[in-house]
Amino acid sequence: GHYIICGFGRIGSLICKEFAAKPLPFVVVEKDVEMIAQMEQDGHGYLFLPGDATVDDVLLRAGIKRAKGLISVVTSDTENVYITLTARGLNPDLFILARAGEEGSELKLKRAGANKVVSPYLIGGSRMAQAILRPTVVDFIEIATGREHMELQMEEILIPAHSGFIAETLASSGFRKETGVIIVGVKKQTGKMVFNPESHTKIEAHDTLIVLGEPAAIEKLDQLVRCDSCAEELIKKHRKKDE
Amino acid sequence: GHYIICGFGRIGSLICKEFAAKPLPFVVVEKDVEMIAQMEQDGHGYLFLPGDATVDDVLLRAGIKRAKGLISVVTSDTENVYITLTARGLNPDLFILARAGEEGSELKLKRAGANKVVSPYLIGGSRMAQAILRPTVVDFIEIATGREHMELQMEEILIPAHSGFIAETLASSGFRKETGVIIVGVKKQTGKMVFNPESHTKIEAHDTLIVLGEPAAIEKLDQLVRCDSCAEELIKKHRKKDE
Ligand SMILES: [Ca+2]
Ligand SMILES: [Ca+2]
Repeated sequence: GHYIICGFGRIGSLICKEFAAKPLPFVVVEKDVEMIAQMEQDGHGYLFLPGDATVDDVLLRAGIKRAKGLISVVTSDTENVYITLTARGLNPDLFILARAGEEGSELKLKRAGANKVVSPYLIGGSRMAQAILRPTVVDFIEIATGREHMELQMEEILIPAHSGFIAETLASSGFRKETGVIIVGVKKQTGKMVFNPESHTKIEAHDTLIVLGEPAAIEKLDQLVRCDSCAEELIKKHRKKDE
Repeated sequence: GHYIICGFGRIGSLICKEFAAKPLPFVVVEKDVEMIAQMEQDGHGYLFLPGDATVDDVLLRAGIKRAKGLISVVTSDTENVYITLTARGLNPDLFILARAGEEGSELKLKRAGANKVVSPYLIGGSRMAQAILRPTVVDFIEIATGREHMELQMEEILIPAHSGFIAETLASSGFRKETGVIIVGVKKQTGKMVFNPESHTKIEAHDTLIVLGEPAAIEKLDQLVRCDSCAEELIKKHRKKDE
């Protein structure tokens, strides 16, 4: 499934950049001819569709029936609500992420069918207050979530259904000893979050581990959980050490 | 020292709310008479000074010579640069936090003397991309940094110069065993960050611990590090257990 990004303003273009870097397939829907001209001039090679995303036919041509998600980031909140309503009507299973500008729009966007709403003003204001109240926490989060600093990354790792680590505990899996990452949370398949999990927490299929560590260490852990033949060996290795 | 908040727009009013909740002393400088009328009508009781923050005399009357920090969050980037320049000229030791709207303003604000620059658009766009790329990490960070969810908080704790825990290791301090918080990072007095510190990391005076845990557990740790008589007892207690 691909993503439909409605609006190529400042926020829309930032999202395109991150998606292209991953890479994640997407199409941009933009009605402003100046923006379209800018996009063509920039030469990123993004797939785009000129048109108004509040119109059923435009979203259908963008492939909304088979899309994985839609991101509504046009400038006007009214239009974001309208796009969300239209998109939800065309695809009930779509993940819809919308931007709220004004206060009070968040509720309207959620009522219109958005799964998640982000308000840049709210986040910006909160980040600025925190930069005074908890400056070291802000630095830490910026380093952990930003791409520039390679010493630290916060990532999520899904435990596959067939993983050999299932029914082991966080300690007996050897994850920390082998890779050095810290597991700061586990999201269970039910959606429940376990924070700061204890070492005897059991690993279950479809757990999402929230980990902190160096990108290379996280990459190693990601490969381990997908590797059928690694589990038994790793568990034995660290069990021996502990004895 | 107090803080001077220049601009009572959407971001400025959010910052005031967070500062008032802490509480942290501040004065708002605002030149727009409608905003001032709104502020008086809201009845928060915020201290404010009507006037233009780009003018030396207004900042002097706001107490800039003895202020701890200034936050420049007016709508125009040009004015934020001008306020930053003026403020830096009047107080070389002030912490200046400024908002960047347009791309490219960050560099100008830093050149003008800002210590930290936050761009709501950049943060908002990045948060939206991450909500698709790493949804569980975004949930985790929102829970850890938000005030609503009491299960988890990320906080920073300064080790006082006289603390009885100095020269202990993270393990021998008993911090984790006694309170259950995880120490995910340590900022040294030099500014160096140690991520994901090992249990034998030595505690030094003026370390800032970056911790994850329940608010009550963090509060307990915060009291422990400030308590002169607690250190010896706690260290003994957990040493005994380990034997
Ligand atoms: Ca990073
Ligand atoms: Ca929280």
